[in-house]
Amino acid sequence: MAANGHSSLANGASTRGKPIKCKAAVAWGPGEPLVMEEVEVAPPGRLEVRVKVLFTSVCHTDLSFLKGENELQRKFPRILGHEAAGVVESVGEGVEDLAPGDHVVPIFNGECGACAYCESDKTNLCGTYRVNPFKSTMASDGGTRFSVVDRSSGVRQPVYHFLNTSTFAEYTVLDAACAVMINPKAPLEKMCLLSCGISTGVGAAWNTANISAGNTVAIFGLGTVGLAVAEGARLRGASRIIGVDINPEKFTKGKEMGVTDFIDSKACDKPVHEVIRELTDGAGVDYSFECTGINDVLREAFVSTHDGWGLTVVLGIHATPKMVPLHPMELFDGRRITGCVFGDVKGKSQLPAIVDKCINGDLNINFDGFITHNMPFSDINKAIQLLEEGKSLRCVLHL
Amino acid sequence: MAANGHSSLANGASTRGKPIKCKAAVAWGPGEPLVMEEVEVAPPGRLEVRVKVLFTSVCHTDLSFLKGENELQRKFPRILGHEAAGVVESVGEGVEDLAPGDHVVPIFNGECGACAYCESDKTNLCGTYRVNPFKSTMASDGGTRFSVVDRSSGVRQPVYHFLNTSTFAEYTVLDAACAVMINPKAPLEKMCLLSCGISTGVGAAWNTANISAGNTVAIFGLGTVGLAVAEGARLRGASRIIGVDINPEKFTKGKEMGVTDFIDSKACDKPVHEVIRELTDGAGVDYSFECTGINDVLREAFVSTHDGWGLTVVLGIHATPKMVPLHPMELFDGRRITGCVFGDVKGKSQLPAIVDKCINGDLNINFDGFITHNMPFSDINKAIQLLEEGKSLRCVLHL
Ligand SMILES: [Zn+2]
Ligand SMILES: [Zn+2]
Ligand SMILES: [Zn+2]
Ligand SMILES: [Zn+2]
Repeated sequence: MAANGHSSLANGASTRGKPIKCKAAVAWGPGEPLVMEEVEVAPPGRLEVRVKVLFTSVCHTDLSFLKGENELQRKFPRILGHEAAGVVESVGEGVEDLAPGDHVVPIFNGECGACAYCESDKTNLCGTYRVNPFKSTMASDGGTRFSVVDRSSGVRQPVYHFLNTSTFAEYTVLDAACAVMINPKAPLEKMCLLSCGISTGVGAAWNTANISAGNTVAIFGLGTVGLAVAEGARLRGASRIIGVDINPEKFTKGKEMGVTDFIDSKACDKPVHEVIRELTDGAGVDYSFECTGINDVLREAFVSTHDGWGLTVVLGIHATPKMVPLHPMELFDGRRITGCVFGDVKGKSQLPAIVDKCINGDLNINFDGFITHNMPFSDINKAIQLLEEGKSLRCVLHL
Repeated sequence: MAANGHSSLANGASTRGKPIKCKAAVAWGPGEPLVMEEVEVAPPGRLEVRVKVLFTSVCHTDLSFLKGENELQRKFPRILGHEAAGVVESVGEGVEDLAPGDHVVPIFNGECGACAYCESDKTNLCGTYRVNPFKSTMASDGGTRFSVVDRSSGVRQPVYHFLNTSTFAEYTVLDAACAVMINPKAPLEKMCLLSCGISTGVGAAWNTANISAGNTVAIFGLGTVGLAVAEGARLRGASRIIGVDINPEKFTKGKEMGVTDFIDSKACDKPVHEVIRELTDGAGVDYSFECTGINDVLREAFVSTHDGWGLTVVLGIHATPKMVPLHPMELFDGRRITGCVFGDVKGKSQLPAIVDKCINGDLNINFDGFITHNMPFSDINKAIQLLEEGKSLRCVLHL
């Protein structure tokens, strides 16, 4: 078990309360490769924890921030990364639910457990620690916990945080609300996928859509999130899981992951929703999932569902300033549309039980199916490239 | 009770199986006043019933069809009208759940009770008899049951049906799926409002939104449907019912009907959603209802709700070819939007129990509050004018 290798951390008294110097992959500017730097990681502040990251993986959201696709979100230097697993090194003032040595999975969409949002069963968006693409500093004091010496100027400067997580570093500081303690028996090199991809996709199938046995599903975009939706649908007994992608190479993997039918949208001589209707006796699917962030695809996903009760779940990041591509009257056909953040999972409340079920064998999430590559942390730019080229699902980096 | 006056109909053997000549208010062309004509009403066909209409009222949907606002929906001559109550005169072949003498309320959104939609608890859109603005003939044979002699040509010609109902006539023919039998003790002159306005608004509050005690609500547009939403919200114990309208005269009536706060949107010096935020401690309302059919209002309604769980229910008829005025990413704030037809009420399954509760005093729907005028059927053009000028809610016409 991965757990045993890190027991020395449980008494990390030597570093507690002190800055830690360690390696991090720093993003210095839009589109530039990450640079492995020695950074200094300050001790955790109030309600924060410092975590030794053992595994991290790369997700498309990291890429879009690295490219600086949205000007308002350009903050450099910055430590990206939000899928990871590690061990708590030390905790800041006021942290009661975590202790050094605890195995944790960071979550970019935190859960304080006490606000009106956290107390509602209708949302997983915490009032304080919800995902925020514009946030680049810590909530407690507006500062950063990372610093680095600029090689040209020799001046030490702050390094910005990212999505409540910043896991492309040997140590990171998280709000305790963004660190989920999990069973130490769980293999961290797999659990890191719960930080984003698997929780988002499986949660979208289970929580947002609440798929039942026999339901039909269409998934637009067969990346990690799309395949995780398929995994969630398979585990709930969906009768038909239709995968749509422009890259037919993704279909081999999809089949392994439970996708039952494939539509190569580039090879279609009619709109995809018509093909989906034909595959479903003219009815359309009970649920469609939009995982591409493309507005035209969103429309196809919407009209692919069964009238009366079809639900389209939006998971893709839609960067273009376009309106939702449907007319208000189309809502009167009984089709619904909803966004979904982190699979509507309340991370701290719900992930530990899911991990326990995976360990006990009560739940058979195919983590291995998503992990196409394992590499040392130093190869992070290679991992980024594989993802950009569509050649990997999850590349797990070992720190 | 109205019931007693019509017992002679229970043995309407003299007319059964024969055409009936009676009065109807015929729409001859777009924008023209209705003309009281002698029409012939054929006997009901298979799975149809012929109903003596005793009360009918005018709704905005009648007006928009009368004006011919949508070219594709222009069908003349036509008998409009969809809010009514009456007594079954005779039934066609195969009708088992209705008999002559039964008191009925027509519903424009029928319920066959046997299709996949009717068997689903997620929709009230019957596969065969759902509301269809393009339908102008009977489902069983594609024909009409009305005919009239054109005064200029002297030729008898068919008169088109409207919204499964066509209640601006002394007799009409309905699919049995579109006629709800109700308790004969119920006063038909009030129950006619269950055909559309009250069921739609109260149902939107109860079924679509499922308002709970203490919830906050904003209603955009204080016509009959908007006030019926207020009525439904009041009956569920909503803590705050904010009414928004451009016509401050509607506020007097609104207050009588349980609206707690008013916003005159024309007099606002900031966007309405900001005013609503201020009224709700910065949070926004749990539910907003769009009853105007104006796209900009729809956007205000959407952003007026509480992030994380706010739901906007679209009730207005949006004739303009505009997209839903929100960006896909805005769905990630946890606000939802849904259309609502006939208050998500399954008419034949659910209305009879609601009527029973009203009679027993278990439910106190303020029917009288909506009935601002009573008139003879012959004054129908006056009733139309009052509604157009915003001077009435429901004008009940006595046939
Ligand atoms: Zn991610
Ligand atoms: Zn919270
Ligand atoms: Zn109506
Ligand atoms: Zn049906």
